[in-house]
Amino acid sequence: MTEVLHFPAADAAKLESYLPPRPSEPSSGPAAAQPAGLARPFVTLTFATSLDSSLALAPGVRTALSGPQSKAMTHYLRSRHDAILVGVGTAVADDPGLNCRIAAGSDPAAIDASDAMAVSAHQPRPIVIDPHDRWPLEHDSRVLATQRRGLGLAPYVVTAVLEPNETKRQLLESHGGKYIVLGGNGAASDRPGPGVRFRWEDVLASVANNGLRSVMIEGGGSIINTLLAPESSSLVDSVIVTIAPTWLGRGGVVVSPDRVYDNNNQATAAARLKDVKWQQLGDDVVLCGRLNS
Amino acid sequence: MTEVLHFPAADAAKLESYLPPRPSEPSSGPAAAQPAGLARPFVTLTFATSLDSSLALAPGVRTALSGPQSKAMTHYLRSRHDAILVGVGTAVADDPGLNCRIAAGSDPAAIDASDAMAVSAHQPRPIVIDPHDRWPLEHDSRVLATQRRGLGLAPYVVTAVLEPNETKRQLLESHGGKYIVLGGNGAASDRPGPGVRFRWEDVLASVANNGLRSVMIEGGGSIINTLLAPESSSLVDSVIVTIAPTWLGRGGVVVSPDRVYDNNNQATAAARLKDVKWQQLGDDVVLCGRLNS
Repeated sequence: MTEVLHFPAADAAKLESYLPPRPSEPSSGPAAAQPAGLARPFVTLTFATSLDSSLALAPGVRTALSGPQSKAMTHYLRSRHDAILVGVGTAVADDPGLNCRIAAGSDPAAIDASDAMAVSAHQPRPIVIDPHDRWPLEHDSRVLATQRRGLGLAPYVVTAVLEPNETKRQLLESHGGKYIVLGGNGAASDRPGPGVRFRWEDVLASVANNGLRSVMIEGGGSIINTLLAPESSSLVDSVIVTIAPTWLGRGGVVVSPDRVYDNNNQATAAARLKDVKWQQLGDDVVLCGRLNS
Repeated sequence: MTEVLHFPAADAAKLESYLPPRPSEPSSGPAAAQPAGLARPFVTLTFATSLDSSLALAPGVRTALSGPQSKAMTHYLRSRHDAILVGVGTAVADDPGLNCRIAAGSDPAAIDASDAMAVSAHQPRPIVIDPHDRWPLEHDSRVLATQRRGLGLAPYVVTAVLEPNETKRQLLESHGGKYIVLGGNGAASDRPGPGVRFRWEDVLASVANNGLRSVMIEGGGSIINTLLAPESSSLVDSVIVTIAPTWLGRGGVVVSPDRVYDNNNQATAAARLKDVKWQQLGDDVVLCGRLNS
């Protein structure tokens, strides 16, 4: 039984100005889908925190934080992007389905709105950032089981390992997914070092090169914090943050970018949003804005 | 020249259900003002943070965070409480006036609304928590200068030092303020140890004993964090948090209570709000709620 979520059209309308153009129809390939010269996709950064800016009580601990309306919003947002992106830590911790479970009828522009209980026909492409190819993907992993049921797409796994695991490669490809090998800190290698980190420009260029014109980046903590840093924030088009009226307490997985210093070597705000809109959704609030970079 | 702030009546109305009864008229003394048996005042906890839950970039660094509407709200809230309370760290860092600069006309129930530009006739009593009597209060400290201009009250300083500094005592008393000597961790002493900490029950009982029926607790970080802890949260009636759409970055003065564990020794949320209302105010959001304890 698939849980089907509903997100009211009135709430959806309030998000519209922060969203990319509606996702493309399934296309025959990158060449067809990608406008010439598109260096990167439309990027929406979205996540849910506590009042003390924690995503979770601890790494790998699933933490009930936001309410049901916020969950429905997340799936509505997924319906509005060509791809969704998470770090491998999130993929390992949650064994997520990485699909869109919004009812087709929730999207006022959905073509098959006649069947309001059907799950959205559009499914975003999951992208998992996994520099060291450590995601223990198996036949029974939820994302692949979801694909087999026709309720989602298999992931693209972005890695810095030159020759990723062959079993996983076959598993991915038999489900319609694949590895994308990318240079971390410069170049891919047989055994990338522990500190390997992709440049966001490279990751987003490869997303665009795969014909994906919009990506919703969902977490986890280090993914979000690096995107909020000044050197990356110009790559982000919209930010949509849900905040639950809860303090998780010290020791959680915190969203807070590295300290930034101004020209006089004084600490200054790391990131600010502009074009700000706050909307209550259940007990939570949804903050929409653009990064002021 | 005194800056006079305005807070729209429509915004004020939305806060009403989270506020104490309107402050008492100036009374002749504790006995007259305090209903028999009142163990503690109505407590409103209020502060402003960044999205990453920081009050400031670093201890002692004044950090512009919330916008002008939020500042006006803070002064409106002060007009609605008998007392405002801060820790000595805040008093040292900011040399604050600790008065109410809301226009009298901002309060729909103000008696002298005929002069809309006059500062509120009601001034809250400042209370400074200073266990070690380290606040360098001087004749020119802003809180005393403000009192001399008739725009505020002199502070009550709560200390664990049995015989506080005589010069400061005279200075306080000549302005209508005083010391309140309270046992920290049990009893006041000549030289309280560095780890001395008041019990909130004792602090609030002394507030009530001084005829103050409501107190707005404004900070700083350790004051807020201890009040959000489970052993104190039942003492708090309302919480009003302003959040600015800014990330200050790692290393700030963070609001996040100590980690809480449940009966199975699992980490759990430290504090939750109920009866939640979120309202956008300028670019900020104001969260009102009650602690679910």
